[in-house]
Amino acid sequence: MTFSVTILGSNSAVPTIARNPSSQLLNINEQLFLIDCAEGTQIQLKKSRIKSQRINNIFISHLHGDHYYGLIGLMTSLHLFGRTKELIIFANSELENIINIQLEASKTKLCYPVVFHSLSYKEPKIIYEDRKIIIKSFALNHSVPTCGFLFTIKNRERGIKKEIITELNIPVSEIINIKNGKDYVDENGKRYKNSYLTKEPIPPCSYAYCSDTGYFEDIIPVIKNVDTLYHEATFMEDRIQNANEKLHSTAIQAANIAKKANAGKLIIGHYSARYKDLQPILSEAKSVFENSFAAEDGKVFDIENY
Amino acid sequence: MTFSVTILGSNSAVPTIARNPSSQLLNINEQLFLIDCAEGTQIQLKKSRIKSQRINNIFISHLHGDHYYGLIGLMTSLHLFGRTKELIIFANSELENIINIQLEASKTKLCYPVVFHSLSYKEPKIIYEDRKIIIKSFALNHSVPTCGFLFTIKNRERGIKKEIITELNIPVSEIINIKNGKDYVDENGKRYKNSYLTKEPIPPCSYAYCSDTGYFEDIIPVIKNVDTLYHEATFMEDRIQNANEKLHSTAIQAANIAKKANAGKLIIGHYSARYKDLQPILSEAKSVFENSFAAEDGKVFDIENY
Repeated sequence: MTFSVTILGSNSAVPTIARNPSSQLLNINEQLFLIDCAEGTQIQLKKSRIKSQRINNIFISHLHGDHYYGLIGLMTSLHLFGRTKELIIFANSELENIINIQLEASKTKLCYPVVFHSLSYKEPKIIYEDRKIIIKSFALNHSVPTCGFLFTIKNRERGIKKEIITELNIPVSEIINIKNGKDYVDENGKRYKNSYLTKEPIPPCSYAYCSDTGYFEDIIPVIKNVDTLYHEATFMEDRIQNANEKLHSTAIQAANIAKKANAGKLIIGHYSARYKDLQPILSEAKSVFENSFAAEDGKVFDIENY
Repeated sequence: MTFSVTILGSNSAVPTIARNPSSQLLNINEQLFLIDCAEGTQIQLKKSRIKSQRINNIFISHLHGDHYYGLIGLMTSLHLFGRTKELIIFANSELENIINIQLEASKTKLCYPVVFHSLSYKEPKIIYEDRKIIIKSFALNHSVPTCGFLFTIKNRERGIKKEIITELNIPVSEIINIKNGKDYVDENGKRYKNSYLTKEPIPPCSYAYCSDTGYFEDIIPVIKNVDTLYHEATFMEDRIQNANEKLHSTAIQAANIAKKANAGKLIIGHYSARYKDLQPILSEAKSVFENSFAAEDGKVFDIENY
C-alpha cells in the first residue's frame, strides 16, 4: 500500500532556481491527487517522473498565483497529449472563469471533460469519497478564501495471512468472506477462527495539507491525530510579526499546531525565498515538535508512520 | 554597442526538461525587451542571470499559452519585488482582461503601472520608437491573430575617433557638433575635416521575430535585408503537411523565407518536442540557407553580423 507525498514545490510567492512555489503530488495506492499547481508544476512532475495523465483530481487551496498559475499550462498540455479522461478540479468558484477565458482566447476546446467543484469556506466538508478514500476541505485563515485538505484512507479490511490460506488450500471464493470477518469451515467441518486466518487491519491513515494560513487553532479538531501534517512555515520566529500581518505562519507556529493536533509527523514548507539554508528553520520547528521534516522539491515522504 | 538575443525557450507547445516554450530577451544597448513569455520564463531569466526588473517592454505575439502563460507570474513577481516603474505590454487586446481577472482573484493591486497596447493585424505598424530604436509589428499567418516584430536600431551617428580627440585636446562642448558631421577649427584657426575626426557610422541593424506562422511570403517585404531573422521551424520536411494544416513552418520553409528576405543570419526554433536532437532539423535549414543556427535555451546570439 503506497501512501506518499512528492513535494513539487516548497517555496512561497516566487520561484527560485532551487525551489518552485507550492505543489504536491499525493499517491494513495497509485491514485494520484495533485494539491496546488504553481507555475512550473508540469515540469516538476516530469522531473519526478510522474505521468500527469494519471492525475484525475486537482485541489487548489486558494487563488494566489503561487498556488495555481501552473494549472492552465498543465491542462493545455493534457489536451495536447490527447487526454480523454475527465479531470475534476476542486477550487474557489472564480477559477472556472479564469481557466475558460484563457481557453477561449486560444480557441481551445479541450478534448476531455473538466468538472469544477466549488470549495466552501464554512464548515469542514467531505468533498470526495470512494470505497477507500475520504477527502475533506476545511477553512484556513488567510487574506483570500483558502482551504486546507484532509486525505484519509478509511478503515481497511483485515489482511489475509497468505501462507495459511495456501497451506489450508482455501478456495478463492471463500477469501472475501474471510476478509469480511467470517471464520472458515473446511470440507471435514473443521472450523478455523477468523483471527487465525487474518492480520489486524491497517488502521485509517491521514494526510493534512495546510497552506497558506496564519496560526489558526480552529483547524486542530479537524486534523486531530493526523498521521502526517504539512503546514506552511513561511518565516522563522524573528519575523513573527510579518507572519501575523500577512496571515502566514512561522515554523514554531506550524510545530505548535502539529503538537496540539497530536500529529505523527510534520512537514514544513512554503518558505520565504530569503531562506537559502533550511536547517535553521527546521531546527525551530524541531525545538517544539521533534518529528519535523523540511519539504524540498523532489523529496518523497511516506505518510504512514509504521 | 550590444545587440543580442538570449533564447529563454526554444520549444513549441509543451515544456520539456531541456527546452521551455517560447520566450526571448532582446538586449539593445542594455535596454531589455522581452518577446513572448511562456510558463517558466521568470525562472529562465534567473538561469540566464537577467534581472527581470530591467525589462520595461513586453511583446506577446499571440494568445496561445506557450507564448504567454508565464506573464502573470512574472508580473506578480515584479510586484512582490517592489517594482515602481511602468511596464508596457504589446499584445492582443484580450490579454488585459485575462491578466486583470487573475489579479482581482488574488486581491492584488500592482504597485507599478501597466500599460497595455493592442496589436493590430492589418498593415505593418510602428508600435514603439525612441531616439535609437524603432519597433514594428506585422501580421503572421496562424490559427489565432498573431504578430511578428521587427526591432531596428536606426541610422546611427558617426563615431568619434577618441585618440584624435585626445591628441588635439578638443573640448567636450565641440564633440556633439563633430558627431553631427561638422569640421573642427582649433584656437589657431586650423580646420580638421569631419572625416578625419570620425569613423563611418554603424549602419542600421535589425532583428525580426516570426513565431508562430505557416509559410507566409507576405512578410518578406517587411523583413527585407534583416540582419538576423528568428523564424519558427516546428517541423522537419517530412511533416510539411502537419505544418501546413496547423499553420506552422518547417525548417526548410523558414530557410526559404530567410533566403528570399536576404537575411544575414537565420535562427530557427519553436521545435516540436519530438525532436530531441536538433542537428537534423538544423541541417535541413542549412541545406537552403547556410548561415542558419538552432535556438537552444540559454544560448545568446549577436544580432549584428560584423
